[in-house]
Amino acid sequence: MKLPGLEWRSLCPFRSTILLVPDEQEMQVIRSNQGGLKERTFDKKNQCSQNYNSESLSAQDVDEIDGASSSKANHLANDGVETDNARNANSTFFMQEETAQRPPKEERGQLNLLSAAYESLDYDTNVNSVLLDEERKNGYPFVMKKDAMRWLVVMVIGILTALVACVIDICIRELSKFKYHWLKRYTDEGVLYGTLVIAFFLWGALNVGPVLVAAIMGSVVEPMAAGSGIPQVKCYLNGVKVPRVVRIKTLAAKATGVIMSVLGGLAVGKEGPMIHSGAVIAAGLSQGKTTSFGFDFKVFEYFREDHEKRDFVSAGAAAGVAAAFGAPVGGVLFSLEEGASFWNQGLTWRVFFCAMVSGFTLNFVLSVYNGVPGKLAFNGLLNFGKFDDLTYEIWEFVPFVLMGISGGLLGALYNHINLKLTAFRMKYITRPWQKILEAAFVAFMTAVVAFLMMYIIDDCRLISEESAYPIQMFCREGEENAAAAIWFQTPEESVRSLFHEGSGSFSWSTLSVFFVCYYFLACWTYGLGIPAGLFIPTLLCGAAWGRIVGKTMATLFPDQDWVDEGKYALVGAGAMLGGVVRMTLSLTVILMEAVGNITFGLPLMIVLMVAKWVGDYFNEGLYDIHIQMTGVPIMGWDAPPLSNNIYASEVMNRPVVTLRAVERVKRIVTILEKYTYNGFPVVDELPAVSGEDERFFKTFGRLRGLVLRSQLTVLLKHKVFNENAEVWQDKRVDIHLFRESYPRFYTLAQVQLDPEDLQCTIDLRPFINPSPYSVVACSTLPRIFNLFRALGLRHLVVTNDDNEVVGMVTRKDLVKYRVWKHRGRIHMEELIIYSNV
Amino acid sequence: MKLPGLEWRSLCPFRSTILLVPDEQEMQVIRSNQGGLKERTFDKKNQCSQNYNSESLSAQDVDEIDGASSSKANHLANDGVETDNARNANSTFFMQEETAQRPPKEERGQLNLLSAAYESLDYDTNVNSVLLDEERKNGYPFVMKKDAMRWLVVMVIGILTALVACVIDICIRELSKFKYHWLKRYTDEGVLYGTLVIAFFLWGALNVGPVLVAAIMGSVVEPMAAGSGIPQVKCYLNGVKVPRVVRIKTLAAKATGVIMSVLGGLAVGKEGPMIHSGAVIAAGLSQGKTTSFGFDFKVFEYFREDHEKRDFVSAGAAAGVAAAFGAPVGGVLFSLEEGASFWNQGLTWRVFFCAMVSGFTLNFVLSVYNGVPGKLAFNGLLNFGKFDDLTYEIWEFVPFVLMGISGGLLGALYNHINLKLTAFRMKYITRPWQKILEAAFVAFMTAVVAFLMMYIIDDCRLISEESAYPIQMFCREGEENAAAAIWFQTPEESVRSLFHEGSGSFSWSTLSVFFVCYYFLACWTYGLGIPAGLFIPTLLCGAAWGRIVGKTMATLFPDQDWVDEGKYALVGAGAMLGGVVRMTLSLTVILMEAVGNITFGLPLMIVLMVAKWVGDYFNEGLYDIHIQMTGVPIMGWDAPPLSNNIYASEVMNRPVVTLRAVERVKRIVTILEKYTYNGFPVVDELPAVSGEDERFFKTFGRLRGLVLRSQLTVLLKHKVFNENAEVWQDKRVDIHLFRESYPRFYTLAQVQLDPEDLQCTIDLRPFINPSPYSVVACSTLPRIFNLFRALGLRHLVVTNDDNEVVGMVTRKDLVKYRVWKHRGRIHMEELIIYSNV
Repeated sequence: MKLPGLEWRSLCPFRSTILLVPDEQEMQVIRSNQGGLKERTFDKKNQCSQNYNSESLSAQDVDEIDGASSSKANHLANDGVETDNARNANSTFFMQEETAQRPPKEERGQLNLLSAAYESLDYDTNVNSVLLDEERKNGYPFVMKKDAMRWLVVMVIGILTALVACVIDICIRELSKFKYHWLKRYTDEGVLYGTLVIAFFLWGALNVGPVLVAAIMGSVVEPMAAGSGIPQVKCYLNGVKVPRVVRIKTLAAKATGVIMSVLGGLAVGKEGPMIHSGAVIAAGLSQGKTTSFGFDFKVFEYFREDHEKRDFVSAGAAAGVAAAFGAPVGGVLFSLEEGASFWNQGLTWRVFFCAMVSGFTLNFVLSVYNGVPGKLAFNGLLNFGKFDDLTYEIWEFVPFVLMGISGGLLGALYNHINLKLTAFRMKYITRPWQKILEAAFVAFMTAVVAFLMMYIIDDCRLISEESAYPIQMFCREGEENAAAAIWFQTPEESVRSLFHEGSGSFSWSTLSVFFVCYYFLACWTYGLGIPAGLFIPTLLCGAAWGRIVGKTMATLFPDQDWVDEGKYALVGAGAMLGGVVRMTLSLTVILMEAVGNITFGLPLMIVLMVAKWVGDYFNEGLYDIHIQMTGVPIMGWDAPPLSNNIYASEVMNRPVVTLRAVERVKRIVTILEKYTYNGFPVVDELPAVSGEDERFFKTFGRLRGLVLRSQLTVLLKHKVFNENAEVWQDKRVDIHLFRESYPRFYTLAQVQLDPEDLQCTIDLRPFINPSPYSVVACSTLPRIFNLFRALGLRHLVVTNDDNEVVGMVTRKDLVKYRVWKHRGRIHMEELIIYSNV
Repeated sequence: MKLPGLEWRSLCPFRSTILLVPDEQEMQVIRSNQGGLKERTFDKKNQCSQNYNSESLSAQDVDEIDGASSSKANHLANDGVETDNARNANSTFFMQEETAQRPPKEERGQLNLLSAAYESLDYDTNVNSVLLDEERKNGYPFVMKKDAMRWLVVMVIGILTALVACVIDICIRELSKFKYHWLKRYTDEGVLYGTLVIAFFLWGALNVGPVLVAAIMGSVVEPMAAGSGIPQVKCYLNGVKVPRVVRIKTLAAKATGVIMSVLGGLAVGKEGPMIHSGAVIAAGLSQGKTTSFGFDFKVFEYFREDHEKRDFVSAGAAAGVAAAFGAPVGGVLFSLEEGASFWNQGLTWRVFFCAMVSGFTLNFVLSVYNGVPGKLAFNGLLNFGKFDDLTYEIWEFVPFVLMGISGGLLGALYNHINLKLTAFRMKYITRPWQKILEAAFVAFMTAVVAFLMMYIIDDCRLISEESAYPIQMFCREGEENAAAAIWFQTPEESVRSLFHEGSGSFSWSTLSVFFVCYYFLACWTYGLGIPAGLFIPTLLCGAAWGRIVGKTMATLFPDQDWVDEGKYALVGAGAMLGGVVRMTLSLTVILMEAVGNITFGLPLMIVLMVAKWVGDYFNEGLYDIHIQMTGVPIMGWDAPPLSNNIYASEVMNRPVVTLRAVERVKRIVTILEKYTYNGFPVVDELPAVSGEDERFFKTFGRLRGLVLRSQLTVLLKHKVFNENAEVWQDKRVDIHLFRESYPRFYTLAQVQLDPEDLQCTIDLRPFINPSPYSVVACSTLPRIFNLFRALGLRHLVVTNDDNEVVGMVTRKDLVKYRVWKHRGRIHMEELIIYSNV
C-alpha cells in the first residue's frame, strides 16, 4: 500500500509500537539533509548534568526507595532536632549537587551554558476543584471587584513608581550640586594657587566614596541589585523566576546604589534601575505583603499567583520606563516586547493606564521641583530637552544610514569587549571584596580621565548659560573649559548639552577625546557590581560622535539651514543605542517621547533599524549577552528553524515520577525529598512491573492530571490527610490554604510530620489539574514551543497514543536549542546544562 | 476515603465512566452559585440550526450512507454533464440549507446572532510528512532566502500601499478643487443675480453624482467594499476568513468608491478604506498571484498558507494606517491590537518596517505634490496640521475629563442610533437598488443641510487665508460666510480648520448648528452601501463641540494664554472618537502622530480612556457592533469570566466524522459531499458497532492525526490513489501540489472521478498532522479558549482519557458564549447560530 514518490520518515503515526527515537538510519538521512545544521550530540558532560535523564528511576523504583528510606523518613518524622538534621542533610544533598555541577572556572562566562537553578513561573493557572469552588462561590460580583481592584492597584503602582523615580532623580540632582559646587571651588582655587592636585584628589575621593557605597549595595547587601535591572526584568517577564529580583530589599539596595553610582561620576545612568524599581513595586504592592519585612496586609489575596503577579510586573516595568524617560507609550511597548505571551487588550490597557499615571505623577512632582507647578507641558521635564523643529532633507538619509552602520559596528565592538570583560569577571572577580575594589578603581580612573581631559585639552569657549559650574581653568576671563563643561554634570545632563548647545560649543579635540575615553569607560563600567543603567552612557557616546559628524557636515556644507550639530548628535545617540541594545520598536518610541518630537521619528527609526541589522550580524544585544552568560533559560520568540525534525520524544525527560490519585504520605515525602521537579503527573494506574515489554519504552501510567510540588507541600504541612477527616470537618480546605504560602512555598524541612502521619494517605483529586496540556510523543519541537511560548507553560506532559505518560518537557528542554544567526549563517547548538552557572 | 469539607463537583478525573455532561443536580448547584449568570439553555431554534449537533450520525452511519448513495456517487463519477448536475445538486443542497437557516426578517440586525458561514483561517501549520520533506530538502539556505523575501515583500507592500493612498488622496484633492471651484462660481453668481436655486441644484447634483458611482461600487460591483473596511480587516486579523475581503477587485471598488464618496461631500473619511487597501495589497502581493484576474506570477509560492498570509496582512494594515494618518507607530499598534495572537518580535519588527516604508513613501510623494520635494519634515504632510506648542495647566484636566465623559456619552448615543439604523437597513434595505437610492438620498440631504446652513446662518468673518474658496454670500466685501467655509472643503480639511484657525473664526451658532447636523448626518451615513471611513466624520463632530467648549473657556477665562480653541477642538475630537470607536492605545498614538505633538499625549490619553470607559458602560464600539450584527465569529480577548464551569464536553460537537488511515475514495467523496466540516480526525480503528456500551458516549476511534478538507480535495483532484502508484512513480507528491490550489481549494464539483476511481484507496498517512492539539473532555472553557486564542486554532479535537475522539470544538463553539459588561453588570449569553446572517 506504500505509495512510491512519498518518502517515509520519522513521523510516528500508525506505528504499532511507539518508536520514541528515530532509528539511526533515519537520523543519518535527516542530518545529511540539514544544510548547515550542526549535529546535535550529547556529550558526556551534558548527559551527567541532566539528572532527569541520567538517573533511571521508574515509579516502581520509587516504591523501592520508599521502603529503603523509611528509616530516614522516620528520622525526619521525629520533629525538633531530627528535622533540623533532615534539613541539613537535605541542603547538603543540594550543595553537593551544586558544587559538583557548576562549570569549572575556565568555562565560566561562556554563552552556551544553561543554568538549571532557575525555575519558571506558573503562568498557566492550575485549574482544580478548589479553584472552581471559589469561582462558583464568589460569582460575578467577585469578578467585578477583582477587576476594579486591578485598576486600583495599577494606579497606585504608577504613582509609587513615579515617586521612587522622583526621589532618585532629585537626590542625584541635589547631591550632584553639592559635589560639583565643591569641586568647582577647589578647581578654581587650584588654578589660582597651583594646588590643582588637591582638586584632583578631592575629585577622586568624591568619586570613590559614593561608588563604594554603591558597590556595597550591589555586591554585599543584594547582588541582585547590581547591573541595569533590565535583563532581570526581561527574564522575569519572559517567565523565569529569577530569585530575589522583585523583593523590597532589592529595591532599597538598587535605589540607594544607583544614586551613589551616578553621584560617583561613573559612566552610568539611572534609567534601568528605575525600570527595575517599577517592577519591584508592582510585585510588592499587588501581593499585599512583603516577605522581606514579614508584613502581610491581608489584602489582594486573590492576586497571589504567578499569573496575576507577572501581569502586574509588566505594568510596573512600563511605569518604570514612563518615569525614567517620560515615555508612557514606549513603556507599554517595552513591557509588551519583553513580556507579552499574547497581546491581551485588557492587560495592555491597564499597563497603559499605569504608565500614564506614572508619567503624570512624575511630571507633576518635577514641575513642582522645577518651580513651575502644574505646568505639565514644561519642556524641561523631558529628559533630553525638547527638539522643537528638526527639519531634514531627503538626501540626509544617506548620512543617517551611514551613521546607523557606524552605530551598529561600534555597538557590536562594545558588546564584544564587554562580553570578554564579563567572562573575565565571572572567572576571577567573584568575591564581594574584589567587586568593591574593582568598582572603586573604575571610579578613580574615571576621575583621572576627566581630570586629564580638562587639564590637557585647551578648548575654551564663552561661558554657556547651560553650564551650572563653568570651570575657567586656563581659559581667559568670561570663558570656560569645554571639556570641563561635559564632565561637571551628570551623564544625563551631558547628553542634553550635546543635543542642544549651539554649534561650535565643543571643539573637535574635546569631542574626539571624550568619545574615545567615554566609550571604553562605559564599556568597562557596565557589569561592575553596582546598580547602573546602560542607556545614558551609550547615548552619551553616540551623541559625542554624532556631534563630530555634525561638525563635519557643517564644514562640508557651510551656511545650510538644515545643518544642526544637535540633530546629528541625536542620530548618533540613537545609532549607538540601537547598536548596543538592539531593541527597535519600543526604543524608537522611547526616544521619540524623550525628545518630544514626532516629525523626526522616521529618521530615528531607520537609524535604529540599520544599527540593529549591522550589530546583529556580529553578535547579540548586550542585555541578551548578559542573560545568556548567567545561563537564564530565557525563551526566544520563535522555535528554531528546521526544528520540525526534533520530536517531543527527543526533548522530553524520562523517567517521569508519577503519583497515584490517592497516595501514601510516605511515598510523597520520599519523592519530594529525592526529586526537585515541580510538577508530577497523576496517573490512575501504575505501570506493570515487567521491564521491557512489547513497547519500546515503559510508560508511567495513564494521565489523569497534574499536581504541583507547592500543592503537595501545603497538603503535607496542613496534614490534609484522609485520616484527619474529622479535623477538617469544620475547617475548609480551600484555595486560601494554598495562597497563604505564596510565593515561597514550604520546603520539605518546614513540614513537620509524625511517624504515624507517614502511614496516612492523601486524596489528591480535588487539587490536581485534571486537564493539563499534553502532547503526543511525535509532536514536533515548534508545536511544543508554541504551546510554551503562547501559554506560558512550565511543564508539558508527553503521552503516547494511549494517553499514557511517557515523558515531561520543561522550559529548559526547549531553551537548550539555541539558534545563532550571525555573519550570514544560521546554526543551532545545544546548550550545556549545569545545575548552576 | 472521601474527605469531608471538600465538595465534589463536576470535575471528571477518575471517573470510571466519562460523564460528559454534569448531571442535573450538580448543574442546579452550579447555577444557583453563579451570581448573575443567565441560565444557558438551548432553545429549539438553536438546536436545529446546529446541524453538527442535530444530526446524529456516527462514522458507522457514514458507511451506510456510503453504500446507499453509491448510485449518486456513480453519477457524479461520469464526468461532463453529470458533474454539472452533481454541482447543481450540491449547491441546491447548500442553498436550501442557507435559506432554511437564515434568521427571519424581523430578527435580522440583532447582536446575538452568529453566522456559521464564516470559516476560520488555518493559522496553525499543518505539520505533516510532506511539509517536513520540503523543510529537510531545502535546509537553512531556504530559511535565509524565505526570510529575506519576507523583508522584500514587506517593503514593496509599504511602498504600494502608500502609492495607493497617494492616488486616493490626490484624486480627492484635485476633483474637490474642481467641484468647489464650480460651486463657488455658481454660488457667487447666484447671490448676485438671485439664482441661488441653480447653485443649490448644482450642489445637489455634484453630491449625488459621485455618490451614485460610490454606491454602485459598494453595492453592486463588490459589496465587500462597502463600509470602512476596518471591521473586515479586524475580523481577518482575528482569524476569520471573510469572503472576498482581500481581493484585488475589492481594492479597486474600494479605492474608486471612497474617492467618489468623499467627493460627493458625504460625512465620510478616506482613512478606513486606506487601511483596507493596505491589507488587500499585502494579501495580493505576498501570494504572487491574483485570483481576480487569474494571474499567477509563480513567485512566493512558499507564502501560500494562511499563517504567512495573515502575517503579511498585518503588515499591510499597519502600512495602511501609516499612509492614512502618517502614523507608523500607531499602525503597528493597530495591527497588533487587532491581530496578534502573541507578540512575536520578528513579526513586529517587519510590520514596523512596512509601516515605516509606507510613511516614508507617502511623505515623499506628497512633498513632491506639495511642491517641497524631499522636505519630509514639512508640517503640511500631517493630516490635521501640526500643533506646535500645546501648553496646559494641571487643573485643565478637569475640563478634559468632563469632555471625555461627554465624548463617551455622545459616542454611546451615536452607536445606539447607528445600531438601530443598521438593524433597519438589514431588514428592509437589502437589495442593491435600495442601497443605491438610499445613498443618493443621503448625499442630497447633505447638500440640503449644507446649503441651508450657509443660507440661514449669518456668520460673517474676514476672509481667512486658509479658505481656498471663500464664499461671500450676504456678507460684506472682504468677508466670508463661516458656515460655507466649513462646507466648502473635504471633511479632513474641515477638521484641520477647526483645529488651527484662530479664535473667533467660527460663531457659536455656526458651530452648534454644524455639530448637531453633522452628528446625525455622519451617524446616518455610516453603514450606507458605499466605501466610507468613520474616523474623520467622528473627529469633525468632536472638533466642532470641542471648539464650542473652547469658546466657552475663552469667555469664562478671558486673557489667559493657555486658552486655545484649537486645543479644545483637538480634545473634543479625541473624546468623540474614543467614545465611538473605543480603541485606546493605538488610537492615542495615531492621534499623537497625526498632530505631531507628544507633549499633549497625556491629556489625549486621559480623554480617550475616560471616553472609552463611559461609552463601554452603555454599549460596544461601533466597529464591534457592526461585526456582531453580521454574525462574524470574532474571538474576544479573554475567556468569559466564571466559565470554568463549562467543559469541553459541553461545547464540543458530536458526532465526529472520522477517517481511517487508508481510506476508500468512495467514502471520502461521500463524506465531503455530506458534510461541510473542514477538518477530519484520522483514527486507527473505527469504533465497535454496539450502540450504548458501558461508556456514556460512543467514541469515534483512537486519535492518530488530523486531515483537512482542502488536502482531501487535492488528493482526489490529482488522483493520488494507491492504485495509481505507477503514475506517481515519476512525479513527486509534494507540498507544491497543495499550495497550487491555495487559497481557493477545489470544490467537490471540480473533482472529476471515474467510477473505477471510487473503488480506489488513499493512503492519508503522509498528509495528516500526526500531533493535532487536543484536550480531554473535562477541560474547562478558559483552557480551550486560551489554546484557540494563542495558537490561532481552527479546530480542536476532544478526546477521552484513552485518547479516543469524542468530539470536536471549533471557533464558533467558543465564540457563542458572549459576555456583556454594560451598566455595571456582567452577564453571559449564548448566541444563536444561523447558517448565514
